[in-house]
Amino acid sequence: MGRWEPDSRGRLQEAALTLFAERGFDQTTAAEIAARAGLTERTFFRHFADKREVLFGGSEVLGERIAEAVASAPSSDGPLAAVARGLDAAAAMLGAFRRDLSRDRHAVITANPELRERELAKLADYATSVAAALRDRGVAEPAAGLAAEAGMSVLRVAMQRWAGGTDDRDLAMIIRDALAELRSVAAGRLPPEHHDVTPESCH
Amino acid sequence: MGRWEPDSRGRLQEAALTLFAERGFDQTTAAEIAARAGLTERTFFRHFADKREVLFGGSEVLGERIAEAVASAPSSDGPLAAVARGLDAAAAMLGAFRRDLSRDRHAVITANPELRERELAKLADYATSVAAALRDRGVAEPAAGLAAEAGMSVLRVAMQRWAGGTDDRDLAMIIRDALAELRSVAAGRLPPEHHDVTPESCH
Repeated sequence: MGRWEPDSRGRLQEAALTLFAERGFDQTTAAEIAARAGLTERTFFRHFADKREVLFGGSEVLGERIAEAVASAPSSDGPLAAVARGLDAAAAMLGAFRRDLSRDRHAVITANPELRERELAKLADYATSVAAALRDRGVAEPAAGLAAEAGMSVLRVAMQRWAGGTDDRDLAMIIRDALAELRSVAAGRLPPEHHDVTPESCH
Repeated sequence: MGRWEPDSRGRLQEAALTLFAERGFDQTTAAEIAARAGLTERTFFRHFADKREVLFGGSEVLGERIAEAVASAPSSDGPLAAVARGLDAAAAMLGAFRRDLSRDRHAVITANPELRERELAKLADYATSVAAALRDRGVAEPAAGLAAEAGMSVLRVAMQRWAGGTDDRDLAMIIRDALAELRSVAAGRLPPEHHDVTPESCH
């Protein structure tokens, strides 16, 4: 087997996700993934530090893309508008993956508590970066933290629908609808003992 | 040392949190916690399965209280109002803890990636229970999931302010203000390519 294999990374990812779905994450070895992809174990380790990295390999890049989109939003954008541009960046990157493989990935992570905790930590890290980007734009706390957390909630709920198989539309569309739904929910009436602020868009 | 020690659980918690803050979580043993509290290691293990449980002992109860408050909200409550009642329940339970110990707990969890992941998983579990309680009230998805996630975002941000030492007010007050802030953020203008729904309270 030569040093260069066309799209060996993609073949390894596909083989890994298929095996994780068939046998479970813990029951699958790097050697088995390489064999299923018709590649050597050495090739596997040229692309991934371990089998976990097949699932989380692109996550730092995704976090950076989201935070960059927030940072580079037009200065006229309020916090939610800037976060919406971050979500568009996430949709562009995540929506480009094969949906069947994204579903396999989602099922594996959901079934494994340790992987689920890592996925949650990843989303919390994105929220931290987005909040920092918003503060750099002059948004005060707690608005920055809340806008960031709300945006990542939209991403989590939309990803569950997209990769969990309950919504067949494009990820970008699901994200936009989820954001609209969050706005509608947030505008609902509160119990009398709570401060009931008037949403700014009503002015 | 007798079998019965008045408030031995509370003394063990205080000793544990003080030691975690002084030495770090990993560098503290159950025997040291017991010694600092003037109790035996056997007494420690009558109250806690391990030192981690000192940090997360009440978390299932808190999750149940939040979900019960959502479930038993007046039927006229919309999803956000029901979630606000869950947040009131969380404030009542968490706000009763000694604030200095809550700050120690928060600092220990923030400093330790494994504990932080467990804390995030706990909040995600609360969101899952709250979403289920909302669906039982007839709220459809994705509104139920989004209202639940938004509520837990408010709780996370408010807890960070309360236990992180950046906000000296009562937890209940911080939570209510964070919820009001989330509403204000969510009502902000969106980029033109997004659906820009009119918040329902404007009708």
